[in-house]
Amino acid sequence: MQQLNILKIGGNIINDSAKLEAFLQKFAAIKGLKILVHGGGRSATDIAKKLGVETQMVGGRRITSAEMLEVVTMVFAGVNKQIVAKLQGMNCNALGLTGADLNLIRAVKRPVQTIDYGFVGDVIGVNHLQLKNLLNLNISPIVAPLTHDKHGQLLNTNADTVAASLAKAMAIHYEVNLMYCFEKNGVLLDVEDDNSFVPQMSLEEFGGYQKNGIVKDGMIPKLTTGFEALKEGVEKVVICSAEGLDVEELKGTKLVL
Amino acid sequence: MQQLNILKIGGNIINDSAKLEAFLQKFAAIKGLKILVHGGGRSATDIAKKLGVETQMVGGRRITSAEMLEVVTMVFAGVNKQIVAKLQGMNCNALGLTGADLNLIRAVKRPVQTIDYGFVGDVIGVNHLQLKNLLNLNISPIVAPLTHDKHGQLLNTNADTVAASLAKAMAIHYEVNLMYCFEKNGVLLDVEDDNSFVPQMSLEEFGGYQKNGIVKDGMIPKLTTGFEALKEGVEKVVICSAEGLDVEELKGTKLVL
Repeated sequence: MQQLNILKIGGNIINDSAKLEAFLQKFAAIKGLKILVHGGGRSATDIAKKLGVETQMVGGRRITSAEMLEVVTMVFAGVNKQIVAKLQGMNCNALGLTGADLNLIRAVKRPVQTIDYGFVGDVIGVNHLQLKNLLNLNISPIVAPLTHDKHGQLLNTNADTVAASLAKAMAIHYEVNLMYCFEKNGVLLDVEDDNSFVPQMSLEEFGGYQKNGIVKDGMIPKLTTGFEALKEGVEKVVICSAEGLDVEELKGTKLVL
Repeated sequence: MQQLNILKIGGNIINDSAKLEAFLQKFAAIKGLKILVHGGGRSATDIAKKLGVETQMVGGRRITSAEMLEVVTMVFAGVNKQIVAKLQGMNCNALGLTGADLNLIRAVKRPVQTIDYGFVGDVIGVNHLQLKNLLNLNISPIVAPLTHDKHGQLLNTNADTVAASLAKAMAIHYEVNLMYCFEKNGVLLDVEDDNSFVPQMSLEEFGGYQKNGIVKDGMIPKLTTGFEALKEGVEKVVICSAEGLDVEELKGTKLVL
C-alpha cells in the first residue's frame, strides 16, 4: 500500500507568519502523497469582534451563530488560500478545499440536546474516491475546517476531527500517517516543562491522564480523535512539533492502542 | 470539439441572496462542461470599512493595499465557498478555486507607471491542462477573482478579466461560450431604458459607443475583455441577464468582430 501523510496544523502556528512559513517549507518538501488540514487561528475571534459579531461560549465551547459562521467561513477560506499561494511558491501543487468542495466532507448539523452549538457539523461521510482522484493527479489538498450538509449549508467542524475523519476514510486506500503538529514537541505531562515529554501513549494511559486532569484543553480532541483514527485502520498517529516536523522518523508522541 | 460554457456573475447578483439562489439553480441545470467566475460584490468595501481598512481610489479605480488584499481574499474566498456549498446542494459537483490553486492563473503584480495599483495582478498564464483534468472528472470549477505570482503572493484581478483569460486558454481544447451575466438583459444604449437593448455589437460599434460615452463604467471591462476573447478563438461571447440565463439560445448582446 502506498503511504499518505495527513498533517494537521494548529492556530498558534497559523498566526505566526515566520513559523507558518517554516512549517510550509517542511510540508512542501515531504515526498509522496500528502494532505494538510489547518485550523483557523485565533484571528476569527478578533475579526468577529471588529465586525461586531459576538463570540458566544457555553461551557467553554464556542457557539457558531449564523453571523459567526459567515465570519469563520471568510477567515478559514482566506487563510486557506494564503497557504495555497505560499505552497505554490514552494513548488507544491496545493489545492485549497473545504468539505463542501467536491462534496468531500458531509456532515449533519449537531442535534440540539442540552446545548445548541449552532452551525457545527458532525462528520458523517468522506468522499474518499474524489480525494484519491486528486492525489492521483499529484495534487496536495489543503483542507479548511468547514464541512457541509449537502443541502447548501456550510458547517463549522473542529480541525482535529476533520483531519482524523480524512485519515480514517483514506485508510482503505493508503497506509496513512496522521500527524497533529503544534508548538510543543508532543504531549507534555507538565505543559510548562518540555522535559515532561511523553514519547508514547496508550489509550489506557490517556484515560488515566484525562481522569486526573494531566491531559486537558486542546490536547483532548487531538488524542480522542487520534485514538479513534488508530482504531479504524490508520497506521500511525503522532502528536508532534510543527517546527521539528520529521515525517521519516515520525518524532513526537506516538499513540498506541 | 466539446462545448464548454464559462459564465461570469457580477456583484449585484452575488449580494442578493434570492437572485443568487435563482442564478445558481440555472447554473446547476446546465448540461455539459461549465465554469463559473464570480465577482466579490460590494461587501468587500463594507467589510473593509468595518475592519478599519480604508478604500483608496485613484482615478475611480480601487488600489489594493496589503491590508485590502487580506480583506478581499477573505471576502472573495468566503463567497466562493458559500456558492460551492449551495451548488453541491443542487447536485452540481462544484469545486471552489482561486488562481493560486493548482497554479491555475499566474499573474504579475501590475508594474507601477503613473499609478501604483498595489497588489493587482495582470494575468500571464492559465494552467489549461489542470483545468481540463478537473473538467474530465466531471467537476465544475467555481473561480474567485484572485490570481497569484507563483512566488507566494496572491493578487487581486478583475473578475471579467479572469473569465476572459480562462475562456481564451480553454479555447484550444473546447468550443467555448463566454457569458457575462448581470442584472440587465444585455448592453443598453440608455441604462435607464430596457427597450434600448442591443442584440448584437461589433468591435467597431463598441469603439463608437465608447467614444461618445454611451457605453461606460462596468460595461467597458466586459466588452473589452469579451472582444479580446473573441479575437483569440472563443466561439461566442454574450453579455446577458443572470435572471433570464439561457445557455441554449444564448440570449443577450452578442459580440461580433
